[in-house]
Amino acid sequence: MFKIGLIGLGHIGEVHARNIARHPELRLTACYSRTEARRQAFARTHGGRAARHLSEILDAPDVDAVMIAASTDSHSKLLLAAAQARKPVFCEKPVDLDLSRARQTAEQVRQTGIRVMMGFNRRYEESHAAIQRQVANGGVGRLQIVQLTSRGPNRLASRDYLRGSGGFFRDKGVHFFDLARFISDSEVEEVSAMGAALVHPVVRELGDFDTAIVNLRMRNGVLCQIDNSRTAIYGYDERIEAFGSEGWIESCRQPDAATRWTSGTQARISPFPRDIYARIGGSYYRVIEAFADFLAQRETRVPTIDDGLAAQSIAEAATLSAHEHRTVRIDELP
Amino acid sequence: MFKIGLIGLGHIGEVHARNIARHPELRLTACYSRTEARRQAFARTHGGRAARHLSEILDAPDVDAVMIAASTDSHSKLLLAAAQARKPVFCEKPVDLDLSRARQTAEQVRQTGIRVMMGFNRRYEESHAAIQRQVANGGVGRLQIVQLTSRGPNRLASRDYLRGSGGFFRDKGVHFFDLARFISDSEVEEVSAMGAALVHPVVRELGDFDTAIVNLRMRNGVLCQIDNSRTAIYGYDERIEAFGSEGWIESCRQPDAATRWTSGTQARISPFPRDIYARIGGSYYRVIEAFADFLAQRETRVPTIDDGLAAQSIAEAATLSAHEHRTVRIDELP
Amino acid sequence: MFKIGLIGLGHIGEVHARNIARHPELRLTACYSRTEARRQAFARTHGGRAARHLSEILDAPDVDAVMIAASTDSHSKLLLAAAQARKPVFCEKPVDLDLSRARQTAEQVRQTGIRVMMGFNRRYEESHAAIQRQVANGGVGRLQIVQLTSRGPNRLASRDYLRGSGGFFRDKGVHFFDLARFISDSEVEEVSAMGAALVHPVVRELGDFDTAIVNLRMRNGVLCQIDNSRTAIYGYDERIEAFGSEGWIESCRQPDAATRWTSGTQARISPFPRDIYARIGGSYYRVIEAFADFLAQRETRVPTIDDGLAAQSIAEAATLSAHEHRTVRIDELP
Amino acid sequence: MFKIGLIGLGHIGEVHARNIARHPELRLTACYSRTEARRQAFARTHGGRAARHLSEILDAPDVDAVMIAASTDSHSKLLLAAAQARKPVFCEKPVDLDLSRARQTAEQVRQTGIRVMMGFNRRYEESHAAIQRQVANGGVGRLQIVQLTSRGPNRLASRDYLRGSGGFFRDKGVHFFDLARFISDSEVEEVSAMGAALVHPVVRELGDFDTAIVNLRMRNGVLCQIDNSRTAIYGYDERIEAFGSEGWIESCRQPDAATRWTSGTQARISPFPRDIYARIGGSYYRVIEAFADFLAQRETRVPTIDDGLAAQSIAEAATLSAHEHRTVRIDELP
Repeated sequence: MFKIGLIGLGHIGEVHARNIARHPELRLTACYSRTEARRQAFARTHGGRAARHLSEILDAPDVDAVMIAASTDSHSKLLLAAAQARKPVFCEKPVDLDLSRARQTAEQVRQTGIRVMMGFNRRYEESHAAIQRQVANGGVGRLQIVQLTSRGPNRLASRDYLRGSGGFFRDKGVHFFDLARFISDSEVEEVSAMGAALVHPVVRELGDFDTAIVNLRMRNGVLCQIDNSRTAIYGYDERIEAFGSEGWIESCRQPDAATRWTSGTQARISPFPRDIYARIGGSYYRVIEAFADFLAQRETRVPTIDDGLAAQSIAEAATLSAHEHRTVRIDELP
Repeated sequence: MFKIGLIGLGHIGEVHARNIARHPELRLTACYSRTEARRQAFARTHGGRAARHLSEILDAPDVDAVMIAASTDSHSKLLLAAAQARKPVFCEKPVDLDLSRARQTAEQVRQTGIRVMMGFNRRYEESHAAIQRQVANGGVGRLQIVQLTSRGPNRLASRDYLRGSGGFFRDKGVHFFDLARFISDSEVEEVSAMGAALVHPVVRELGDFDTAIVNLRMRNGVLCQIDNSRTAIYGYDERIEAFGSEGWIESCRQPDAATRWTSGTQARISPFPRDIYARIGGSYYRVIEAFADFLAQRETRVPTIDDGLAAQSIAEAATLSAHEHRTVRIDELP
Repeated sequence: MFKIGLIGLGHIGEVHARNIARHPELRLTACYSRTEARRQAFARTHGGRAARHLSEILDAPDVDAVMIAASTDSHSKLLLAAAQARKPVFCEKPVDLDLSRARQTAEQVRQTGIRVMMGFNRRYEESHAAIQRQVANGGVGRLQIVQLTSRGPNRLASRDYLRGSGGFFRDKGVHFFDLARFISDSEVEEVSAMGAALVHPVVRELGDFDTAIVNLRMRNGVLCQIDNSRTAIYGYDERIEAFGSEGWIESCRQPDAATRWTSGTQARISPFPRDIYARIGGSYYRVIEAFADFLAQRETRVPTIDDGLAAQSIAEAATLSAHEHRTVRIDELP
Repeated sequence: MFKIGLIGLGHIGEVHARNIARHPELRLTACYSRTEARRQAFARTHGGRAARHLSEILDAPDVDAVMIAASTDSHSKLLLAAAQARKPVFCEKPVDLDLSRARQTAEQVRQTGIRVMMGFNRRYEESHAAIQRQVANGGVGRLQIVQLTSRGPNRLASRDYLRGSGGFFRDKGVHFFDLARFISDSEVEEVSAMGAALVHPVVRELGDFDTAIVNLRMRNGVLCQIDNSRTAIYGYDERIEAFGSEGWIESCRQPDAATRWTSGTQARISPFPRDIYARIGGSYYRVIEAFADFLAQRETRVPTIDDGLAAQSIAEAATLSAHEHRTVRIDELP
């Protein structure tokens, strides 16, 4: 049984707490949020004690490992603190929105020798994971093309969120840059991205994008296509496919139930899920399972800080490419 | 918050305990099994106290309602005891394998005035429920045909289980007889069933069936077709459809994930789920939600003891029909 | 090259003429209809000569084989005449609506030694045929259940047509009785049918059905379920499945194109085909291919007169069963 | 009735001849191939006379319109000759592999005032066409992204064919460049393509690609993604989707039949079609229908020479982009 201290008690913190409860080897023993009322309420609902200071998590003997689900700008500081407290860490992406600070943190963490798992939960979505496994096992032969589509419901974040998000590629694209590396088992060489602000005036005003397409050339020759948007009025639409010399595999679009019916002479199927949890909710449990395996040293192929840095680099390159209308080599980046 | 006492701590009891934990208005406060070790372990895992006697559930002030998930032959006794203790009850089907004893219990329970909900969870399977709603709302016009298919994985129960099960129609068919009534919103008038023992010698030996098809004529003119088997080597295969003068609706077969791929020139999709929980697992939570609504008096259309008796009567008639190779009118039954 | 004489130039005659034109080994050399204008126009469009008398088909040296697509009441006479003219025949079902006259004709034809193929085109629908092949090859192991659904668009035939049709089971059901025998590779032992007139008052008035469900028990133990209606407002809906101890196979419902789209938050797919040709149109060509193979003696497993008689017998038994509300043994029939 | 003279009697010529025969308003009256035996055999099979010289098509009073299905290098000469003979033309793409010669021919044809339809049959594929219609009708709101996938069976063309084909983008991509313009109803502004030779050594040797991905930015802001390969061992795989602010529509992958089955615990569906005709065969008839409508002046939105030139320009830009690893603006082209 591993005793978990959770830092950050927002929406994603709740998701993790519920999944910890479902796992036979994990127990939530302490939780921390800056807001006292929040941490008290959280502890009542999910069990464990409410820590009054970070040190009541980081230095506590009843905490074997730390999960960081706090706001993005505190990740690097918390990550380093946990590592220095010699506790293994699960950390939501990104290490730091600023890539050089992220690299520095990574280096400092590395020196502690403490093991860190980054929360790239999409690697654990059942059908996405099946693609990676099948490709790795040679099921599609020589991999040629990977396609990743992810379009989220049209609920525009606030102007403040958008301004602080680092732009579309850093905020939303980074999950798919990680998947492109994960599935192709290779590093990016060249990035060519096109972005557009076609729907939301505020996005255009901020010089950001609400629609984007990206081509990646991987070192091993694989070509990747990604498209993203946050303007799908019909729901959460995500799919991936991999194509190679011996076959093809797809993690399909998913309706939110398995009903088909007619309405007059029309034919209908269950609509797309209204939110991301209905589409990839299972991955949030499986990433927690992987964390338990990681703590038990049964699993070593979890996403690392280096994976996080690599995905961020691609996001940087994509941002540059889209703004300058040119192909960017990943080794151009500082 | 409703405090629940659970009687019967086998597989289905575990499923209920986990779903009670997920529900914000329910709390498991006590559990009972004849085996002390079992109830101690169960209480440790799921919370609440381990009751040493039934009376520590039935008469306890910290139990607002009783859930009965014990073995079939104890249902009628426990149901009556709980009603007499003036606690509302959730009871797994059937009330009693013996129809006349079931009717007698129902009558006695009725006299207590206590409310009972029968655990026909399939009514709460998302897509099955959508069919009922759409039919009730006139979405298919004048309902004409209801089809129900359910084929379970080929894991033959023990000879003892089979002998005590009351036969294929009573054991397995009864869920679908309930659904036929639920979706058509009518009572059965005539039953014509055919049964066969095509796969398992032990089933044939016992004079039972492993394969069956049933036609029902409902009072409102609707025609229902049911087919059941317990010999599906490919997994758990269940589907329902309703057809009427203005349309059609289907709760489709469901693969266990949304992956498609090729293998050479073959094309494959995710296989059928290996067990019933992967197919209708969600219904076990929704039936618990309905129970909470029932306790809070927000929902009155839950399955009742009378629904249980009606489904059992159809099972009796189907058994008779299959063995005598003739159409049986439901009013022929004693 | 086989030279074909076609008798009966209505809708189905046109379908056959077009398919003969597509086949490299067949040529339409003569056509006959009672109406002169019709046969002249038909010959102009489809080629071949317009025969003024039946004898110009039956006795013509430029006719190697006869296709009978005339009205149902003339089938038995034409079939016998063609056989006596020593020409192999393709004949639309049924031989004769009157079963005893059909049997008599069959006997007389048999004495001529002439080979006859019945036009059960559904055996040649690509996915239906795949089921039969897979079952015959042991792909589903010990066959247990066959299900056949066919619901046609709601275009009610005229009162006159209905009155002359012999009732729902003889008119519409007979194709599926043939498929049940074809797929199960066995003969029917017992029939239990339920019929209802739920939509069309004229059907009820005539004592006929617009909705029907049928259970069949085959001699080899297989159980078959059939449902039919002519009231599908959403299009042509046909599907078949076979289930056995080693697997399952389905000839699926088919939309009329492969488009999916959203409309607001709804999700839609291409609707059902508006007519039977869009669903099983390919089978009309493949049955003509089989006829060419039959003429060339390359194929012997075509549907025979005996198949036609067997399907009619089942229709008789189903009619009796539905009207008398009882199970009918096929050997009860005179 | 329009009388058609067909030039070029290879595979695609045969396809056209069969579709002309199916169309009530078209008749094949003459056909020409350089090889006498070929044109004689073709005329015997498909009707019409075998022309001994081109002039017997171009100047013949029994030819209302000319269809050009000859080898690519003869297109521009034949197109001009037909226009100068004052006969409307249906011409297979491209006008000329050399873009400047193609432009020159286009200009000369324009001066004749004769109407020309280019054979971009994919615009007429039923589900592809549905996407264009729905987008044009505002069904997806503000169009944002168009995706086009086309992967053909892995039957490598000869080295000679490849060398003369103008490269992957000119040979295979051009259909999809046309569709991108057709669906987005806009012109290309920027092209960013990546190509790779991952499977066939001969392709790599020739400096060509067997795998390619392309991003297009259209003048109206729409972003398009295309991926192509000729190495799909599993069959013919083609799909298109369009995404916009109000919805999404897809012309789906299509299996070659509608069968589903299990094999052990695996689940299978009908495989991909083995050749292009099984996937988009219907479009070859509908493009001929459009040609009849064009001749009858009922339809004016057919693909024109200018459409052909535009698609070729995109192919040039894509070729440049892929070889120089940079984004190419379409107005850079000479």
